[in-house]
Amino acid sequence: MATKKTPSKKQAAREAATKPTPPARQGRTKDPKDELTLDAIARTASGIHKAINAVKRPELKMPVRSLSNVTYDQKKGYFELGKDKKIRTLSVATVKTFAQTLKMMSLSADLIRSNDFATKRDAYYQSKNWGDARFEEQPESDTVMDDIEALFSELGVSREQLRYVPDQHGGAVAGELIVVDRDIETGALIEIDCTRFGSGAYAVPSWVEHLKFRTKAKFILCIETQGMFQRLQSHKYWQKAGCVLVSMGGVPTRACRRFVRLLSEQANIPVYAFTDCDPYGFTNIYRTLKVGSGNAAHINQFFCVPEVRYLGLTPQDIVDFDLNKATHPLAEVDVKRAFDALKNDPFFQSQKPWKAAIDMLMKMQKRAEQQALSLHGLNFVIDEYLPVKLKSIDKFLP
Amino acid sequence: MATKKTPSKKQAAREAATKPTPPARQGRTKDPKDELTLDAIARTASGIHKAINAVKRPELKMPVRSLSNVTYDQKKGYFELGKDKKIRTLSVATVKTFAQTLKMMSLSADLIRSNDFATKRDAYYQSKNWGDARFEEQPESDTVMDDIEALFSELGVSREQLRYVPDQHGGAVAGELIVVDRDIETGALIEIDCTRFGSGAYAVPSWVEHLKFRTKAKFILCIETQGMFQRLQSHKYWQKAGCVLVSMGGVPTRACRRFVRLLSEQANIPVYAFTDCDPYGFTNIYRTLKVGSGNAAHINQFFCVPEVRYLGLTPQDIVDFDLNKATHPLAEVDVKRAFDALKNDPFFQSQKPWKAAIDMLMKMQKRAEQQALSLHGLNFVIDEYLPVKLKSIDKFLP
Repeated sequence: MATKKTPSKKQAAREAATKPTPPARQGRTKDPKDELTLDAIARTASGIHKAINAVKRPELKMPVRSLSNVTYDQKKGYFELGKDKKIRTLSVATVKTFAQTLKMMSLSADLIRSNDFATKRDAYYQSKNWGDARFEEQPESDTVMDDIEALFSELGVSREQLRYVPDQHGGAVAGELIVVDRDIETGALIEIDCTRFGSGAYAVPSWVEHLKFRTKAKFILCIETQGMFQRLQSHKYWQKAGCVLVSMGGVPTRACRRFVRLLSEQANIPVYAFTDCDPYGFTNIYRTLKVGSGNAAHINQFFCVPEVRYLGLTPQDIVDFDLNKATHPLAEVDVKRAFDALKNDPFFQSQKPWKAAIDMLMKMQKRAEQQALSLHGLNFVIDEYLPVKLKSIDKFLP
Repeated sequence: MATKKTPSKKQAAREAATKPTPPARQGRTKDPKDELTLDAIARTASGIHKAINAVKRPELKMPVRSLSNVTYDQKKGYFELGKDKKIRTLSVATVKTFAQTLKMMSLSADLIRSNDFATKRDAYYQSKNWGDARFEEQPESDTVMDDIEALFSELGVSREQLRYVPDQHGGAVAGELIVVDRDIETGALIEIDCTRFGSGAYAVPSWVEHLKFRTKAKFILCIETQGMFQRLQSHKYWQKAGCVLVSMGGVPTRACRRFVRLLSEQANIPVYAFTDCDPYGFTNIYRTLKVGSGNAAHINQFFCVPEVRYLGLTPQDIVDFDLNKATHPLAEVDVKRAFDALKNDPFFQSQKPWKAAIDMLMKMQKRAEQQALSLHGLNFVIDEYLPVKLKSIDKFLP
């Protein structure tokens, strides 16, 4: 360690920390979504302000975030929060959390005004400058953020719109799609042609609210494994089929789900999911993409893709495509997961074709990975499987 | 499950499975690397053929892949395999593995000739058509592939050159770089400008052997977290600093490491790693990127980046940049990892500045994440930290 204590660095750090959030770095166009978010923050804050002026105890009503307060509405197509509320009233016991909630909302407003964003961690570290309202540990800060997320979800505002972004990638994308982004500093439009990446792809950013899309694709294909995505991308399957390929890399992240949701809505095209034929592929990947999760029901309205249909391997496909040689026996965890889906999951319970498929899987006691199609040649998936499946979209599992 | 058993699908599957590997789908240019690989396969195979013709027992000499057969050469800058060999001689006991090894080599030659690639899983499923030489379980097939990888590594041929590619992403990239790829079907050149991705990025493919690069960047910055990468990318730090940004997403994958290695070699520019100040950042991320791992020493010659230097947070930075408020106490696992590095790791043992830094960390009993810099403002990292650090490159940890 050759460097010595350099007073100038410390000084710069201290000055930077006490500076107010800078104004937007550039002349950017106002986004209507941002205006809505700022308005929601202002309304919440002024409610509290009014209560204080009227010498009343201010309070925040937040939805209870627990499985007991979750319902599944088949029409809407996702798990959503029920009506249970917890009320956080300002008192001696709650004053710190109350203050932290307001500081976090205020930081969000600053982020929108300066056209910037922060991860959960960034917000936690920023709080160290909030005096007595600072968070001691990150789990505290995460809980307050989850509460804010639930509070604002009722106003139709997502955490990403509050400019709190996840510290995770958003998947990879290739195919018949132009993504329209904006330079964060100049506001200039940037067009990204997803047909032009060779064997590589477009890496979806951590937040996607600001993206627009132009596409002539007929559908979006969301793929479980990077290996299968790489095959379809390298061989330009998207050109043959006229589609957009999305690599989920296992259970899709928030950003990946939001990307697919926004794209399918804006372009008004169907979404098909291509996963392994096993309970993990059905319940953890497909079900999360389609109806969201019960644990985080307050965000499903933004993230789930209710229209998605299942093009992935089914137990019947193991028979139809002669894949028996390439199956594996179900492991204990598979059986448990399948049983759980049939017994406890309102989505699978409400869908007869899924119940039949899972019953068939349990009878066969076998699972098959999407790459099992390699049994018949590496490009059998392109030359046979996908074209055959796409001839009978009406037979896809719902 | 509405679909019924469709004989035509089954028939198509069976026919596809028995078809020989198709010739290249297009008129592509021959790659000298491919010619070298085919030559290495042919030489190995003809050695066996000759032995059989001479009524001798054919054998394959493979490097022993174990930690006891690993040495660290400070000059070369990576862990490498020692001279211990295991000899696989054709006998009644070894005939199946011997045949599997040859079949796997033959599949590799087919893949090169048809300009295709396969994951480990693809190869395993293909083997189901090899009659008695089929693999029963994937771990068997993985072991044979690792042996082949070690065997060919001595001839300077990597697994990716054998066209066996990992089922994983290769990280995300943005900045002053043009990647030159080729259309796998037509051979046409594709240029990908990594300054044109907005808030998104270029997703590196699973294998990168075929990529070429054009860049005026002054350095490559490899970043631990997606959150920090997103900040630097959204604010176009690459433009301010004239660099290429790489998001490793934790410990870098094979494809990510190989990408950085090839780019730094072709462009002849330095590589800096930006990680957390904790034993995981030092040993698991930085050390893997720089000198590779002892467990897979046979691949380090292709994957490690010996020239990389450490620009990440150091214990001294916690003092210099006044980050104390944003530190966390070392956990037990951190202490164990640090102790292990000092006691057992030939890389850290050979580098005095690293020993001093880890000693200092152990004395402070504190760690800091790269996002701790948010303490002084979200863009303190761009406006202060990176510019200050880059003024004293000679002081970077080696």
